[in-house]
Amino acid sequence: MVERVEIGDPASLTVSQMARHLADGALSSETVTKACLARIEAIEPSVHAWAHYDPQQALMQAKEADRRRAMGLPLGPLHGVPIGLKDIIDARGMPTENGTSLDAGQRPTQDATLTQRLRNAGAVIVGKTVTSELAYFHPGPTTNPHDPARTPGGSSSGSAAAVAAGMVPFAVGTQTNGSVIRPASYCGVIGYKPSFGSVPRTGVLKAAQSLDQVGFFARSVEDVALAATVMGPDGQDRDCGLNPGPLLDTALSAPPVTPDIAMVHTPFSERLEPATTEGFAELVDLLGEHGTEAALPDLFGRSAGWLATIMASEMTRNLGHYAERDTDQLSDAFGALMDQGRSIAAVDYLAARDMQPVLREALDPLFERFDAIITPAAPGEAPADLSTTGDPIFCSLWSLCGLPAITLPLLTGPNDMPVGIQLVGAYGQDARLLRTARWLLLQCSPDEETGP
Amino acid sequence: MVERVEIGDPASLTVSQMARHLADGALSSETVTKACLARIEAIEPSVHAWAHYDPQQALMQAKEADRRRAMGLPLGPLHGVPIGLKDIIDARGMPTENGTSLDAGQRPTQDATLTQRLRNAGAVIVGKTVTSELAYFHPGPTTNPHDPARTPGGSSSGSAAAVAAGMVPFAVGTQTNGSVIRPASYCGVIGYKPSFGSVPRTGVLKAAQSLDQVGFFARSVEDVALAATVMGPDGQDRDCGLNPGPLLDTALSAPPVTPDIAMVHTPFSERLEPATTEGFAELVDLLGEHGTEAALPDLFGRSAGWLATIMASEMTRNLGHYAERDTDQLSDAFGALMDQGRSIAAVDYLAARDMQPVLREALDPLFERFDAIITPAAPGEAPADLSTTGDPIFCSLWSLCGLPAITLPLLTGPNDMPVGIQLVGAYGQDARLLRTARWLLLQCSPDEETGP
Repeated sequence: MVERVEIGDPASLTVSQMARHLADGALSSETVTKACLARIEAIEPSVHAWAHYDPQQALMQAKEADRRRAMGLPLGPLHGVPIGLKDIIDARGMPTENGTSLDAGQRPTQDATLTQRLRNAGAVIVGKTVTSELAYFHPGPTTNPHDPARTPGGSSSGSAAAVAAGMVPFAVGTQTNGSVIRPASYCGVIGYKPSFGSVPRTGVLKAAQSLDQVGFFARSVEDVALAATVMGPDGQDRDCGLNPGPLLDTALSAPPVTPDIAMVHTPFSERLEPATTEGFAELVDLLGEHGTEAALPDLFGRSAGWLATIMASEMTRNLGHYAERDTDQLSDAFGALMDQGRSIAAVDYLAARDMQPVLREALDPLFERFDAIITPAAPGEAPADLSTTGDPIFCSLWSLCGLPAITLPLLTGPNDMPVGIQLVGAYGQDARLLRTARWLLLQCSPDEETGP
Repeated sequence: MVERVEIGDPASLTVSQMARHLADGALSSETVTKACLARIEAIEPSVHAWAHYDPQQALMQAKEADRRRAMGLPLGPLHGVPIGLKDIIDARGMPTENGTSLDAGQRPTQDATLTQRLRNAGAVIVGKTVTSELAYFHPGPTTNPHDPARTPGGSSSGSAAAVAAGMVPFAVGTQTNGSVIRPASYCGVIGYKPSFGSVPRTGVLKAAQSLDQVGFFARSVEDVALAATVMGPDGQDRDCGLNPGPLLDTALSAPPVTPDIAMVHTPFSERLEPATTEGFAELVDLLGEHGTEAALPDLFGRSAGWLATIMASEMTRNLGHYAERDTDQLSDAFGALMDQGRSIAAVDYLAARDMQPVLREALDPLFERFDAIITPAAPGEAPADLSTTGDPIFCSLWSLCGLPAITLPLLTGPNDMPVGIQLVGAYGQDARLLRTARWLLLQCSPDEETGP
């Protein structure tokens, strides 16, 4: 005697809602996958979120998921849920083209570790989402689903746009500077970048190994956390040593506790658009006694330079072979990055690397007192310019430190475009960060809680 | 009814012999410490092994060790044994001067992790042994105990000389290029450098973090292994992730099994002195069917260059502040290193770093078949020149790969000076290496086995 629920378009469900309907048999994976594919067929010609998608392969995976369920086999937390992967992440049976024609048709023989983990959790891989060229600044063809004249942000452009457009309820991206949080802000979805070292990068394009971090896009906090619970070390990515799983489960099943949130003035506040400053101030009012102004150590004023030094050095080392193959097929922005990278001295690179733990430790006193730092996720709305992916500066500092960050679509700009509010947590304390994010969402829109 | 054993000069005992006599009460720590101090008093004026030693503090520790034993408290594996620490390793209550007048009188407030571990194991810290300037090439005052006109090698000059001269049965050094294996070879003692990442470097001068490795000097294989058993991660040195302890115990308590040993021609063979080539050939004959010629992948021909790039870049970053303080108090060799370091591009540094795992993996097939690689530890006898610390080239390759290495004093040169034979093991397989070293020692001098 299962109660009949009105589900509506299955493609509009969150991962958690979808997983519950799939588990109780109200929906089949084939049904939700077909709904997602229909949405893609309808909107993709204007959004261009996908570098590659494969309806046949997706439906085959969906039917297999339904078959497993019918047989009573154990089901993972993403069982039967259609997802997208940024096209720098390997998935067997699909090309990985890294946003450059130099890799056209390149087919990996193995899944990335994270792809394998998501498959094991039951996910249906619909396809590969558009990345900017080699995960750097030169944009791909993706447009912002809220306004096709605007950038979706980058470099995880397609992942953010696909989730925003309801093509899939979940997608994976990566962030070296601001490539998860910024596009999530521009596209009005939730973006979550776990602590550096939580998600193995084996089988993911190596851009800058000291900064590269995997992140998730979805439409609820629970959804992004779900994916993190199946991550953790794989014994191959030597920088991956954190295992966020159990803690995240705890944070999401427990009722959100009242947090203390630090409002910091970053050294980049003058780059905020007036409407963002204003909206942020209103939000801060809402926090009341739970928000306190706090100062960042002066050191942080130089963080963007250190990030740029590390990023240019490592990307030039790791991706320089593309420039050696054929400069004509690469953007000017990429060429300039290689020039910049080649000009950096080893001692300056090492000095910048040394700052990562120093900056992280400099925040210890702040995180002893506060559950999270709150800042805008981007200067403002997505720029009405498809030749840029926007300004990552509000992410740089936290990417450099490897801190966990999440953006929530809480503000609206003067053109009705979404603007994200970013919460940043202590290193390795992802559970505390997500708990705080749930609390903030409830404060701002008590009716829209999508948690369990 | 303890049988009375003739012990002779307690300062001549190995750590293991000493520990047994101390445990069964035949000797007190005060007695052995006094014997060591007497030896130091007698020989130090010609050897100059110590940057600092403190008879009063040593005797206080020895008496405390005897008191603990008398009270029946639990005793560590080095209980009551006098040891020396290279003067770049912090020990509370003693200066750390790093071989430069710029650090004269500098007193750390805390023990290095390894010092604390050795204290917990019961060791009596006699003092700090001479290091070359900032653990680089410019020699300190130490002479070779076998011939005062010859170098003891470096940079762990004092540690090797102190053990060779019978001043202490055990000392700690470090190796960034060849600073444990080479001085051990020149001084005719056993030197053991565990796999990179086995010994925490917290509280040890940071020279080149991707190469710096701690090593041990003693007069038996068992002794160097004893110290390794108390090492392993400390949660602070992020590169320290191996825990060799239990495996080493197994290797040393089990009877040595017959190994297969690979004789490789390194790209540096032409730098061997004729007598070393000859002596090595005789030793190889002795191996008989247990020795097989094997080729190193061509890649290894460039290893010395990669090591030099990493070492100069990181040392310039980490030690450049000394040059900024006062160049006049620093050697020309150190100044040249800083110049070299500043000229290296970040991309070249990163390319060299990338080779470390590549080279290590390139040896996997070899170590699938062989228990160890055998090579000379140095080109020949210690040079009769106190302005040099000798040529580290026969260590460079293995330091770069972070492989465990041990040198045994098995050859004698044309001037009756010792020359070491180096065994190199697979990464992380220190137990297998030490087992092979015990076997080789027994082959060469069956009467002198000092193992359990």
